[in-house]
Amino acid sequence: MSDVMKLIGKYAPVLRWAPRYNRAALADDFLAAVIVTIMLIPQSLAYALIAGLPPEAGLYASIAPLILYAIFGTSTSLAVGPVAVISLMTAATVGDFAARGTAGYASVALALAFIVGLVLLALGLLRLGFLANFLSHPIISGFITASGVLIAASQMKHILGVKAEGDNLIEIAYSLGAHLPATHLPTLAIGAGVIAFLFWTRSNLKPLLVGWGLKDRPAALLTRAAPLLAIIMTIALVSIFRLEDAGVAIVGATPKGLPPIALPDFDWPLWRALLGPALLIAVIGYVESVSVAQTLAARRRERIDLDQELIALGASNVAAGVAGGFPVTGGFARSVVNFDAGARTPAAGAFTAVGIAIAAMYLTPLLFNLPKATLAATIIVAVLSLVDIGAIRRTYAYSKADFLAMAATILGVFGFGVEAGVMAGVILSILLLLHRASRPHSAIVGQVPGTEHFRNVLRHDVITSPSVASVRIDGDLFFANARFVEDRLTSLAPDGGPVRHVVLMCSAINSIDASALDALESANRRLNENGVLLHLTEVKGPVMDALKRSSFLKEISGKIFLSEFEAMNALDPERFRQNGAPAQAAASPAS
Amino acid sequence: MSDVMKLIGKYAPVLRWAPRYNRAALADDFLAAVIVTIMLIPQSLAYALIAGLPPEAGLYASIAPLILYAIFGTSTSLAVGPVAVISLMTAATVGDFAARGTAGYASVALALAFIVGLVLLALGLLRLGFLANFLSHPIISGFITASGVLIAASQMKHILGVKAEGDNLIEIAYSLGAHLPATHLPTLAIGAGVIAFLFWTRSNLKPLLVGWGLKDRPAALLTRAAPLLAIIMTIALVSIFRLEDAGVAIVGATPKGLPPIALPDFDWPLWRALLGPALLIAVIGYVESVSVAQTLAARRRERIDLDQELIALGASNVAAGVAGGFPVTGGFARSVVNFDAGARTPAAGAFTAVGIAIAAMYLTPLLFNLPKATLAATIIVAVLSLVDIGAIRRTYAYSKADFLAMAATILGVFGFGVEAGVMAGVILSILLLLHRASRPHSAIVGQVPGTEHFRNVLRHDVITSPSVASVRIDGDLFFANARFVEDRLTSLAPDGGPVRHVVLMCSAINSIDASALDALESANRRLNENGVLLHLTEVKGPVMDALKRSSFLKEISGKIFLSEFEAMNALDPERFRQNGAPAQAAASPAS
Repeated sequence: MSDVMKLIGKYAPVLRWAPRYNRAALADDFLAAVIVTIMLIPQSLAYALIAGLPPEAGLYASIAPLILYAIFGTSTSLAVGPVAVISLMTAATVGDFAARGTAGYASVALALAFIVGLVLLALGLLRLGFLANFLSHPIISGFITASGVLIAASQMKHILGVKAEGDNLIEIAYSLGAHLPATHLPTLAIGAGVIAFLFWTRSNLKPLLVGWGLKDRPAALLTRAAPLLAIIMTIALVSIFRLEDAGVAIVGATPKGLPPIALPDFDWPLWRALLGPALLIAVIGYVESVSVAQTLAARRRERIDLDQELIALGASNVAAGVAGGFPVTGGFARSVVNFDAGARTPAAGAFTAVGIAIAAMYLTPLLFNLPKATLAATIIVAVLSLVDIGAIRRTYAYSKADFLAMAATILGVFGFGVEAGVMAGVILSILLLLHRASRPHSAIVGQVPGTEHFRNVLRHDVITSPSVASVRIDGDLFFANARFVEDRLTSLAPDGGPVRHVVLMCSAINSIDASALDALESANRRLNENGVLLHLTEVKGPVMDALKRSSFLKEISGKIFLSEFEAMNALDPERFRQNGAPAQAAASPAS
Repeated sequence: MSDVMKLIGKYAPVLRWAPRYNRAALADDFLAAVIVTIMLIPQSLAYALIAGLPPEAGLYASIAPLILYAIFGTSTSLAVGPVAVISLMTAATVGDFAARGTAGYASVALALAFIVGLVLLALGLLRLGFLANFLSHPIISGFITASGVLIAASQMKHILGVKAEGDNLIEIAYSLGAHLPATHLPTLAIGAGVIAFLFWTRSNLKPLLVGWGLKDRPAALLTRAAPLLAIIMTIALVSIFRLEDAGVAIVGATPKGLPPIALPDFDWPLWRALLGPALLIAVIGYVESVSVAQTLAARRRERIDLDQELIALGASNVAAGVAGGFPVTGGFARSVVNFDAGARTPAAGAFTAVGIAIAAMYLTPLLFNLPKATLAATIIVAVLSLVDIGAIRRTYAYSKADFLAMAATILGVFGFGVEAGVMAGVILSILLLLHRASRPHSAIVGQVPGTEHFRNVLRHDVITSPSVASVRIDGDLFFANARFVEDRLTSLAPDGGPVRHVVLMCSAINSIDASALDALESANRRLNENGVLLHLTEVKGPVMDALKRSSFLKEISGKIFLSEFEAMNALDPERFRQNGAPAQAAASPAS
């Protein structure tokens, strides 16, 4: 492979695996693609409903993105497409700029997907994947749980056959309550029936199929087709009994064919307004996708390239934006199915795209009589599995700070919607982090008798000097704890006390930022005004290099000692002898 | 003193010092008050101009707040009132809600001061002063420098006698350039003359006065009265030569008397919109004020109570909001003058308030002919001393990360205005912090021969085992480095290698949050799938207590060892003997 090919291969992993592709892999990938396609059709339609878009948009969002991921992705089993949480975020964002059902709504969704894609590409090229670290696990877990509840609640109007609205749980609950008397019973019968059927299949269909003689794996995969079965059955019901005339809401006419390919209109004020929500969607989608990919990769001892995944998801979303879709990411359930069905390379995703494309070209007329209640029922059953009460309980037991961030996220989503929820969680967890960092662990230290070691006076029986106060601060010194550092040092030498030397033991300090440097300079000045000298000991190499670039080493009233032991010998020689054995000198205070 | 009085005294320090107040302190405080009053009159008028308010608002903002600070403050020399940077932020905020010169503008400024006061009171009562730690020193320093330049630029229109506008440096420069041909020469002559006079007095007036036989301190204090002299001289010029008729802009009619006392109108949408800017003004004002107070307190070995200062500044701002002012804080120059003039208690501030009140009642008619160019000139000379190029250079030399945050702040202020500048700096410094925290220092460790110590293999000549990989991570484990921790642990045991045990040495870990716990669980699972066991050693007490509340200790494939030495003895007994002396056993690989 030439150097140029290597460079291209770096950003397009397909060039690395495609040359080794063979017939055995093709057979496995093809089978997996058929199974995933069957599962993906109802999901795609349903998630389009969550996003507030016509059903075909869900199919379109499962074609081009899958092909792009096959070219740029590093996971062998990740299946990309619309997912519940991202669809909900899409609806929340797009709803701020256009009314549902209008052409403007669909075009804002396209622009949003395109911008999400550009944001992901930019993060990938700049290697900024670490931004995903901002979202702590409790925030993500709380966010997904709360989104699951919110989505289920938002779909209840389709089950009840009423018009209800709202961006948060309170509004939705209130609106549903107000419309409850208008419940449409035939619709409710279909919706509740499908929910019951899907819950039943979850625990009972697989054992039944195995009882009929099917092997374990095919039985499990066939169980995954239950939503498609529900769709076919309810379409039949509506067609036979003309339920549309009875007032059951149906999907109606859906265009036949592939989506038009077009760049979204460039409208700078709109794009600028979409940038913030797009960043949030990009980061959450990325985190969700990467954790799925990593879980599956670990089972096969494969590795995921985190920066390349940003590029792959970026390309997928750009593709969704130019080919009739909305924001997409790697989905958990469909990726597991793809994995279990035996997908061996990203080509399985490309084959799935072909399957969905065929569905878009030939099957959409069959969806005319599909009741919206059926789609809502599949959504409700799917998203309730996202709700993880155990995680809330475990987090509460383990860490109150993490629980607080999680609770803020959940209540934020319920009370103010998805974006406010995530932002509340992120801000609170950074606040809690800085609050904790503002008081690092520190200890007054003394000499362990007969050794050169200095330890916490509270935990060890050590020798100290009345004229020398030594403190060890365990952690980097930076803006959040600069004030603490200054106070800690100056409070060691109270006015009129015997302390003449304050020693900062820097053995656990890996960096000192400019704010902390100011704090050290200020402490040095304040101590010096009281006639007390400040010394540093055990300063690490990189920290010393930085200090040399400042004027602190000229200003410091005391000295920089290589070791704490050396410092104590120099500052209170009567008490601390060179050989490490302390003098029996409690008699003479050194000051 | 009864317990109730102690409680009141806790929140009103005046009750602690007032009973001991005596005639000597009164004399000192009175003299200081006279000097500060003379200095404060032109400053108050000028800062009202920056804030976009009529001049009397500046006087009002220097009456009630000073009295409230005297009751609640803990600094003996801090002088509270309008300051340049806060006035600029006030203008930027209020300008978003009302047009300059309208009654609405003044009432939004009142509401803003009131809300700033409530925010400070809330922060004080909740003891949230640590929030000020968010603003690193380079951000504050960069912000003040940039604000100084921005203020000077914004006042140039008064010097040139033209109408120019803009919220950021680019807009102002562009607008000034466009209006330059319309420069009003008589106005320019006054403005440039006052600037030249004030710069001349800075370096030459004090030596001249000393040459005339004055002592050093009175000469220095008299020099501070130069702006008042400039005001008197230019009023005289305008009056004598009827320069108003020549087109010189003057202050004009100013109401005589004290401000009306009234609660600001409660307008919830407005208050909600003002909350964000108010928080920023509160925090920046607090940080500026506290650093002045601490600097002066250190010179007299006094202490400032940081939470009480929040309450005192909160009460001062609430007072500004109900008594005709705008947001205030402790100012540097006037506090130094107060200190140098010998103020001994906060009563000096109360006396100053009386002085300003007398000025508001009797002197405002004299201000009719005051040229705006004179005020602008005093502002320009005052704020250019805020510009600290040396700090930029020192920060660049010391830390590139801090410089980046500083540069973002300065460029943000120049390009987008004050709020955007601070937010850019804060966000960037938190990003840089999390980026650094996402890769904590870590080291593969081995046994120092003949001891029970384990040290970095890269720095010491130590003994390691081929079947056991030990890593020490230096820092708390939390969401920002959770992914790093997982990768670090799993990468220690590459597929097919000899490593059978991975040991995490926790001696430098003070806490593990829920995200990092997930990462440890995930690393444990991934290692275990490859047949590798994960062990922990030297887990600190509080960390162990937390782990006991999770299921990790049940899930972990390996053990928790008290010490690294004990772990190595158990995991590779042939190599590490109980007595601490290693076996000569490079011959037999342990796996």
